[in-house]
Formats: sequence, structure tokens, C-alpha cells
Amino acid sequence: MSSRAHRVSLGDSWSQRVHPDIESERRRQAFDVERLTNLLDRGARNTTLRREVESLFRSDPAFSLVNTYFMTQKEHFQAAAQKRFLLHKMAQRLNWPEDGLEIDYARRALSGDIILGVHTVATKAIISLGSEEQIAKWVPLCKTYQIIATYAQTEMGHVGCLATHAIVMAQLICSGAKRGMHAFVVPIRSPQDHTPLPGITAGDIGPRMGLENADNGFLQLDHVRVPRENMLSRFAQVLPDGTYIRCGTAQSNYLPMVVTRVDILTSVVLPSLQKACVIATRYSVIRRQGRLRPSDPEAKILDYQTQQQKLLFPLAMSYAFHFQAVSLLEFFQHAYNAVQSNDTSLLPELHVLTTGSKAMMTDFCAYGVELCRRACGGHGYSKLSGLPSLATQVVASCTYEGENTVLYLQVARFLMKNYQQIWETEGAHSQRSLPQSVQYFTMVHHDKCPAQNASDFLLPEIYTTAWAHTAARLVEDSARHLQVLTQSGADQQDAWNQTSVSLVQAAKAHCYYVTVKSFQDAVKKLDSEPAIQLVLKRLCDLFALHGILADSGIFLYDGFLSGPQVDMVRTAYLDLLSLIRKDAVLLTDAFDFTDQCLNSALGCYDGNVYERLFQWAQMSPNNNSQMEASLSHCQDMEQRNSLMTHTVTPRDPLHTNAADKCLSSSLVTLLER
Amino acid sequence: MSSRAHRVSLGDSWSQRVHPDIESERRRQAFDVERLTNLLDRGARNTTLRREVESLFRSDPAFSLVNTYFMTQKEHFQAAAQKRFLLHKMAQRLNWPEDGLEIDYARRALSGDIILGVHTVATKAIISLGSEEQIAKWVPLCKTYQIIATYAQTEMGHVGCLATHAIVMAQLICSGAKRGMHAFVVPIRSPQDHTPLPGITAGDIGPRMGLENADNGFLQLDHVRVPRENMLSRFAQVLPDGTYIRCGTAQSNYLPMVVTRVDILTSVVLPSLQKACVIATRYSVIRRQGRLRPSDPEAKILDYQTQQQKLLFPLAMSYAFHFQAVSLLEFFQHAYNAVQSNDTSLLPELHVLTTGSKAMMTDFCAYGVELCRRACGGHGYSKLSGLPSLATQVVASCTYEGENTVLYLQVARFLMKNYQQIWETEGAHSQRSLPQSVQYFTMVHHDKCPAQNASDFLLPEIYTTAWAHTAARLVEDSARHLQVLTQSGADQQDAWNQTSVSLVQAAKAHCYYVTVKSFQDAVKKLDSEPAIQLVLKRLCDLFALHGILADSGIFLYDGFLSGPQVDMVRTAYLDLLSLIRKDAVLLTDAFDFTDQCLNSALGCYDGNVYERLFQWAQMSPNNNSQMEASLSHCQDMEQRNSLMTHTVTPRDPLHTNAADKCLSSSLVTLLER
Repeated sequence: MSSRAHRVSLGDSWSQRVHPDIESERRRQAFDVERLTNLLDRGARNTTLRREVESLFRSDPAFSLVNTYFMTQKEHFQAAAQKRFLLHKMAQRLNWPEDGLEIDYARRALSGDIILGVHTVATKAIISLGSEEQIAKWVPLCKTYQIIATYAQTEMGHVGCLATHAIVMAQLICSGAKRGMHAFVVPIRSPQDHTPLPGITAGDIGPRMGLENADNGFLQLDHVRVPRENMLSRFAQVLPDGTYIRCGTAQSNYLPMVVTRVDILTSVVLPSLQKACVIATRYSVIRRQGRLRPSDPEAKILDYQTQQQKLLFPLAMSYAFHFQAVSLLEFFQHAYNAVQSNDTSLLPELHVLTTGSKAMMTDFCAYGVELCRRACGGHGYSKLSGLPSLATQVVASCTYEGENTVLYLQVARFLMKNYQQIWETEGAHSQRSLPQSVQYFTMVHHDKCPAQNASDFLLPEIYTTAWAHTAARLVEDSARHLQVLTQSGADQQDAWNQTSVSLVQAAKAHCYYVTVKSFQDAVKKLDSEPAIQLVLKRLCDLFALHGILADSGIFLYDGFLSGPQVDMVRTAYLDLLSLIRKDAVLLTDAFDFTDQCLNSALGCYDGNVYERLFQWAQMSPNNNSQMEASLSHCQDMEQRNSLMTHTVTPRDPLHTNAADKCLSSSLVTLLER
Repeated sequence: MSSRAHRVSLGDSWSQRVHPDIESERRRQAFDVERLTNLLDRGARNTTLRREVESLFRSDPAFSLVNTYFMTQKEHFQAAAQKRFLLHKMAQRLNWPEDGLEIDYARRALSGDIILGVHTVATKAIISLGSEEQIAKWVPLCKTYQIIATYAQTEMGHVGCLATHAIVMAQLICSGAKRGMHAFVVPIRSPQDHTPLPGITAGDIGPRMGLENADNGFLQLDHVRVPRENMLSRFAQVLPDGTYIRCGTAQSNYLPMVVTRVDILTSVVLPSLQKACVIATRYSVIRRQGRLRPSDPEAKILDYQTQQQKLLFPLAMSYAFHFQAVSLLEFFQHAYNAVQSNDTSLLPELHVLTTGSKAMMTDFCAYGVELCRRACGGHGYSKLSGLPSLATQVVASCTYEGENTVLYLQVARFLMKNYQQIWETEGAHSQRSLPQSVQYFTMVHHDKCPAQNASDFLLPEIYTTAWAHTAARLVEDSARHLQVLTQSGADQQDAWNQTSVSLVQAAKAHCYYVTVKSFQDAVKKLDSEPAIQLVLKRLCDLFALHGILADSGIFLYDGFLSGPQVDMVRTAYLDLLSLIRKDAVLLTDAFDFTDQCLNSALGCYDGNVYERLFQWAQMSPNNNSQMEASLSHCQDMEQRNSLMTHTVTPRDPLHTNAADKCLSSSLVTLLER
């Protein structure tokens, strides 16, 4: 395999020998892994460039990640700061283009373990919202770290200890009139000695779950004045005489949020899920337990149906969300180009697609990573597995940049608005005026699913229609519920609140439909790669059918599916599990993460799980210093001096060969659960 | 309120003033909170004793928990060790009875933040499995810490750095014959200097997710011999000539596991969920956001239907699992007494009830704590909220002491066995021979639910029957699937594996039914307390209906429920949400956790969330030292000397009163999401 040397990068001596239980998984190649990698990278040239960038970090101990597992929060923060600045110098030395892929690949290689992510967010905000002069003034200062910027909305802190400037999203009151949220560049600390400026109180918010290497703080502004030109003014400005001029829609000011959300999905959320899949899948072909047939050796745990159920849905998600993100990026570029020419007509749909994708992908990725983590049993709790940090990192994304329930309700509002539009403009033309993502509302289809056997459920039309029907039905039910409440005299906000549980359900079904649809569309286009198309179609089928089974009630509710059809779905689903299982290791290899970036004792390419786990555990400072510290506490206790009788005195024919039998494989036994 | 002084125990000056938004929640008392507390404590005398014990820790700084948020893992471990030994001395000084409630209450007061939990587990194992002489020999050594014992099964490590002896569960091979798992007391370290004994390799397993204060390790035994009498021999022994004598069933050796599981559920898992409910509910009546009616002030977030959906199901679980645990403890005592008289006939059902309860309660409590944590938005990620440590603590219980999928499959095996028994012994007598928990298999009931409107779904017979019908149907489906596969020639193990996804589903429905049933039975018995009975019945209704809605497919599948009936369930469910919401704060007050034991800046009794959050954040060492450390890294960067133009120069009529408006409430704004 051409990329093998690239993947096996930790330089451990046993890496020369790939574990036979993982080697056998790679022997049968139903598709070309390298070409799938190229597809995921969106081109073979990108794959080459990515590997070049990744190789820069391979042997440099300054970029090692393993050590972080044994660091205090403070040490971790400092190490991440050091990596950030070493990376900055590297980019300068190698003349990396400012907005090129190199930096993204470097972040990937370092697993995002660098500080000042929010500095980048704030810089992008200036680029999106600033006038040409403002961009020319501030962006170079940011890019050379002459100032350190942060983004301050009503969010868990972004300010911490480092920032010198905050991009503050705040209500503009101009000549007494409220003009909505606008962005202001507010200097908050002296760039010389970092002391807070007058009127500023800022500090660290205390320890957090995950994000240990971040610098999160609180900010208080007390009568702070900034110059008029510090209001970012691409879309609105205030003249010296106080006149307010708008040159875009109110939504334009939310563009940085859209940029940030898309960036988080592609650079943090999705890779976390993919890595968790790699780690858990590789581990599950090494770990053996129990027997499937009395005469067989112990089975790989991935051969258990319940383990396949746990791991292959996250794998299907990993691909589903990849293609959804690609389609989102394309739509984003399209809409963003239009905005740059002051055409903002696509912004509402862009906003909702991003909002829905953010909510669904973060929810499902958090769920999927946790599934993978727990599927590794006791080892999934060891930080050395890499899984705990992935889990805490991705779960935080369910809350930051828009709490998911709030986001689903924003999607629901868009759905209600467009649904009502159908009724208001009924007729042949209505479909054309609907945004593309909700055109399925007016799709004509059967009231009952026409599938007659399990294999019918492998037809994309069948399951996509099932999702479209059910999402549209839930939207309709919510709209009707809202209408009934309003007609019976409820306030609009009250009626909305009393329907919100149903609205969230409708929004979730809509998002699921959108994801199934974009996955299916992407698979269709792969005609020139039939082998890859086949394995990806199976993942698409699994993704769609898993969702139907997990929430079969919404399909059975109105008789769209019958009980026997749900059985067919289950049959098709279980068959898919055993088919995809055969390709599982290769499908995770295709993500092409280096061992360094996985930073997992369980998930390395060579499958030498137990050797690496044992070696890494030896690095624990506890194995050197903790015992003595503990013993000093034990001095408090009674003298322990009556134990001489219990030392090992083999005076008896019974010895623990029995125990040896169970325990002699050391870690294999005792580190397992 | 009699217990108010007891609850407000952190001594902060603002605790004198209870926040009006939480005070108003307590004004309307539909039931007597103190009597509900007594009920939960299983007697008013227990409540008094518990509060006496808790008061011992209130003012002693050695037992403070807040500091732990700012400790390194090592410092935390040492602090937990110190608490353990101070507690030991306190118990001696106050002459606490060895198996009294005082120790349990002390553990509760300290939130379990003491080390050597496994030492207690190991001691209990000796008591359960040892002969009278063995108990007399080892237990006093354990109780006085002359030895430190651990429990070593195929589990994530229990051995760490402290243990001197391990209770090793290992295969006994006796005169060449395998006799199954037995327990051996194996000395592993010198009690004098803690160096490992010959043949022993042990050490720390490295950093973990949660359980930071524990001492978890690995153990390798290489030809270690122990005296014959070190095999714990209440139920089996080996004579000096090698003869093996069994005086109990093979299952007896699993008794310590049963004891440990029940103990974990009542002392770790359930309290974690209850605390999360307290914290999230109190926070949700303080935090205001948005408006429900245009003229109203901003609404408490608990008034949003989606927030009620998130928080009130965990609250219902908290009570459901309390009563299930009580019923489990009663059955355990009954079965254990029988075992002490060598009657082991109840052991299979005890084992399965414990297994199912462990799997379901840990799964649902982990889910519930996480729901509560995320329902607090950005604050739920702050360790100072107390929620991250609860979440990581409880999620670990899904894996240790039996991985939940494995446990559900054990339950399924019991269900299959008993289901087959019905077919083998068909007739009028069959029901009597079934264990109590599966007698519903033979219950005669309708094929369709007879409910005609939403209020019918508040009848316990209706929803209990719905669960019984559906659980029995899923058991039957799995049994049939197994039979079909076996008859078509599949090996038994293979057929089992191919049915395992369905088997797990059946086991989960069975466990849900058992929980609904035990909650319903407990509520029925409260006739003498009608006000409490009413609020608890609502929680029982909510618990049952939430489960039906969340998995409506299994009820719709065979037409037992119709679509319109699912709508009725939803109507009843949403009505329950708004009813229970009124009592929510009091229902969480009734758990009667002290502020000290909650250890949460969000969840204190007085509701002064933001003051406390701000005060606690000030303790962060980062607010003192990190900035300088970070700045030293910044020296690496370009000189920052071009910034004079950006200092605050108010030369312009626009100032950030606008920003002030949004940000002046400091933490309220910037720490929020």
C-alpha cells in the first residue's frame, strides 16, 4: 500500500510488524482505498499536499502529542501555545499562502492542539464584516499577532488572558433608535503589558470539561468608548453626524457566524467522529472475546452483531456528513459570492442549511463518538485511547456557536414559513418559489410505502421518499397544531412554545432527510468508480435505514410503513451490517489519519494495541511519584506490622496456576473489562 | 422550612438572601417537602441522623470540596486520600457502627470524594465469600487498613499503587479439572514498603476520563503461589489432598458482584442523577431568556416546553429508580438471607434483576445527567457547575461492573429461558412456576389498547399493560427468530449472535416494564400521603409515557397503539410537563442535598448563581499566573509596537452605550450562552 509508510509514523519498533488480525482485514480489497482517500480529499493533489504537510510534523518532538496526556491544564495550555507559534514560524519560513490548504492540513496534523482558534475566528469576522479600509488596517495586525483578537458574543467566554482586542457583537443605539446587533472592534488590554484598559474587567472562567488547552474568559465593559470607525462597516455605517446607513440586510452581520459554523463542522466535529471510528474499528478487530461457534478461536468483537450495530452507524455518519459538508461548502461559496455583490437573496436558506447542519452534525457526531468510546469497554475511558478527548471536544460543539435546541427551532421557523407559503400561493407555481431544500414539501407521492420486500428498501428512491414523506408530514402536523392554538386565542409566542417539542421533532426529521438526500446525490455521481460507489451506497443505505429503525414510530404513525415493512427494513439493515463489516477497516483507513494525529494507543495503523497501551502507561508520572506521596498519607494509619503471616509461603500443593491461566496475559486480561 | 438552615451551608454572605426567582418557586407548596424527604430517606429518623452526620463536615475546611476543581490529578488524589483517613478517624472517635448508616451518609456528604472505594468492595467480597475463619482473619486487617485490598477481575484496573492484597477472581483448576471462577486472596505488595512481591508486576494505567481521584492499575501475576486457605471458601473448598468440595451453586461466587452493583446504583449512580436534576432545575428558574408573551418580562427558561422536556424526564427517572432500588434492596435482602441458609433458589432472579437494573439505571442515569448538563448551556461545561464531574462519574458506570450490552444479553438469556418454559409446560400451572418478574408473559390482555382519550393514558393499568404487552411481544419475536435460525441449521451461538440486536431491544423493554411496575406499586402504597401520592403519580405517569413516545414504533408495530392513540399519549405527556413544572424545584429540594455536597456554583439552594460563579472563577489559578506564562511565549512573536493608534480615544459622538446595554451585566452576558 503506497500510503502505509505515511500512516505508520510513531517509529515504535513493533510498528514494523502489523498485527495479523488487522493485516487480514486489509487483504481483501473490494475497492481502492487510495482512490477513496483522494475522493475524500477532493483530489489526489490535495492528498499529496496533505501528506507533505503532515510529514513536517512527524519527527519533530516539539509537535509530539502523546505527552499532553500527562500534562496539567497549565502545561497543556503552554504546550499548545508553543505549537501555535512554532507553526506560525513554519508557515512564514515555507511561504504558505495565507488562505491555502497547508494551514488546514497542519491543524489536522496537530489535531487542533494549538491555541488561539478564536483569534482566527475574530480575524475572519473582520474580513467578513469590515470595510476595505478596516480590513487593511486590522487584518495585518492580526496575522502577525501584533494584536490578539477574540470574538465576544453572548457566549461562554472567548476572552481569557491573551486577547488584546475583542470583536464585540452588540446592539447599536443610534440617535436613540435600536439598530440591531453590529460588530465593534474594542481594545481591551494593553498590547504592551496585557493589563486591562480602563473600564474593562476580564479573566479566566475556571476549569472546563474539555477544551483544556483553550483560554476562555469573561469580559465586562463599563462605559468603554471606542472610535466610530471601530464599528465594522461593510454592511452598515454611522456617519460623523450620527446618520445610520445600511448597505446590506440585517442578516449580513451574522455571516461570520456562518463561516465559523461551517469551519467548526469540517475541521473539528467531523474529524472527531472519523477518528473515533478509526480507533474503535481497529481495536475491535484486535480484541477477541467469546466464541461464535464452539470449535472456533475466540471471535473478534467486531464479528458480534451488537458491536457492528454500535460502530457501523457512526461510520455511515462519517461519510454522510462528509458529503453533506461538501454540498454545504459549495452552497456557501455560491451564496457568499452573491453577498459580495450585494445579492443577499440566498442568505436565509444558507443560514438555515448551516444552522440545521450544525445542530444535526454536532448532535450525531457527539452521539457517534460516545458510541465508539463505549464500544471499547474499559479502554474507552483511558485518555490514552484518544477517545475521551474526542468525546469532550465534540460534545462541546452541541452548545457553542448556537445551542442545538435553539438552532432546531430556527430551522422549524423556516419550515413553518415556507409551509405556510405553499398554502398562501397554492397552485402549479408554488414549487418553483420554494427554496431548494424544502421543495419536497410539494412532492407528490404515495400515502403508503410501496416496498414489498427487504431488498426494495435498498432502493434510494424508497428510503428517500420515506424520509421526505415523514418530514413533510411532521411539518404539516406542527403547522396545524400552531394554527389550532392561534385560532383558539393563544398568543403567537405562546402557541409557538406549546408546539416546540413537535417543532423540534419536525426540524430533526427535515435535517435527516436533507442528509440522506445529499449523500444519495453524491453516491449517484460516482459512476466512474463503481467499486467505491458500491461501498458508499451501502453506507448511504445504512444511514437511511438506521434512522428509520431508530425512530420507526414516525413512519408507522400514519401507516406510511406497516409493521411487516419495518421487519423488512430490519432485515435489510442487518444484512448491510454484515456486508459493511467486511470493509470496515479499509473504510476507516481511507480517512488516512496519521498515527500521530490519532494519538491513540488503541487506534494505531499497525494494530499493536496492548504493547502500545502498556508502553504509554509507563509514562504515567503516577508510576514514579504517586506511591510515595500516598504512603506518606498512610503513616497516619495504624502500624501495619501483623502481616508476616501473609507473605508468599508455598507450603501447600494448591497453587495459582489456575489464576495464572486467567491472568498471565497481563494487560490483555487486567486492563480489559 | 425546617431544613433550610441545613441546606444553605456554604456560609457565603449572599446566602442570607434567597434569590426571589427561586423563593417564588417554593411559595406554593402542594405537598410537604419534609415528608417527601423522610420517605426518600426511608424514615424521619434516618433524615435526622443523615443531617447530623452531614453537619459534621459543614465547617471543616479539610472536607471542603470546592478546591478540588482547581487541583491537578495528583493533588486531587492526595486530597481524597486525606479525606478517607480523616473520615476513618472520625468514625473511630464517634464509635460509628461498622455497618451503620453513618458511613453511608458521610460518603454522601463528601460526594464520594474519598479514595479506596475498591478496598471496601474487596472487604465485602471477603465477607460474602469467605468462611468464618477467613472473615475473622482478614476483615479486621482490612477495616483497620493494616492491609489495603483490591478486587481483580477482568476489569479496568483496580490495583494502582496502594493495594497490598488483591481478591483475584480466577479459574480454579483442581487435579486437572476446571472448576470455574473462584476468589483468591493474593498478597501483591509488601505491606512495609509497598514494593511488589516476587512474580508481581503492577502499576498505574494512566490518565482516565473521570475517576481522577482513584488509584486504578494493572496487575500481572507470573507463577505466584498462595496458600490453599487463601481461596475464599464459603461455597467451595479444596482439601489438603486436592479434593474439591462445592457447598453452594456456581452462582454464589458472583454474590460480591451483586452486592457491588446494588451499592454502586444506590450510592453513586442514582445520587449523580438526582444532583444533576437539582442543579439544572434550580439554574433553570434563575436564568431568564426571551419572552413568552410580548408584554411579559423575560421568561425563566424552565417555562419553555423544550426545557421541561429535557429536565422533567430525568426528574421522573430520579424517583422511578429510587423506588426500583428500594424494591431491589428488599428482594436482595430476602434472597441473601436465603443464601446464608444455603437456599440458592432465588439467585437466578436476583442476579437478573440486579443485572437488568444495573444496565438500565446506568444507561438512563448517564443519559439523564448529560441531558441536565447540556440543558444548562455553556455553564454546563464549566466544572464549577458540578455537572461535568457528575457526567463522567456516572457514564463510567455503564462500563464497569459489567458492560451494559453484555448485561442486557444476560437478561435476554433469562427471558428466553423462561419464555421457552411457558411453551414446554403449557397450561394453567405455568404462571406459578415463573419468576415473579416475568409472570407478565402469561398475562391475558387485549391485542389493542382500549384507551379512548388522553386522560385514559393517565390510568396506570393502561400504560403498565402497554409496556407488558410490548415487552412480551418483543420477547416472543426474538424467541421465534432464534427458533427459525436454529431450525434452518444455524449453530446455537451463531443464531444467538444473529438475533442479538433484537434480544437487546427485548431486554430493554422488559427492564422498562419492570421499572414502571415497581414505581406504580410504590405509588399505590402511599394512600396515607395523598398530596405526595399525587405528585409522585404524575412522575410515574411521565416516566411511563415518555418511554412510549420515545419508542412509539414498538407500540405501533403490531397495532397495539394506533396513530391517534400516540397523539393522545403526547397530549397527556405535554400536560404532565406543565403540571410537574410547578412542583419541580420542590421535588428536587426533597432530595435534600447540602450545598457542600452538590458543590455547584449553579445549583445552590439560595439560587445566587451568578455571584457564586463569579466568586468561584476568581479562585482559578489562571487568573493569577497563567497570563505571565503565556506572555513569555509571546516574546517569540514580532514586536508589538504599532498599536498606539488603537488605545481608547473618545474623539467621536458614537460610544458603546449600545455595547454596554448588551454587556454591562458582565457574567450574566458573557458567561452565558
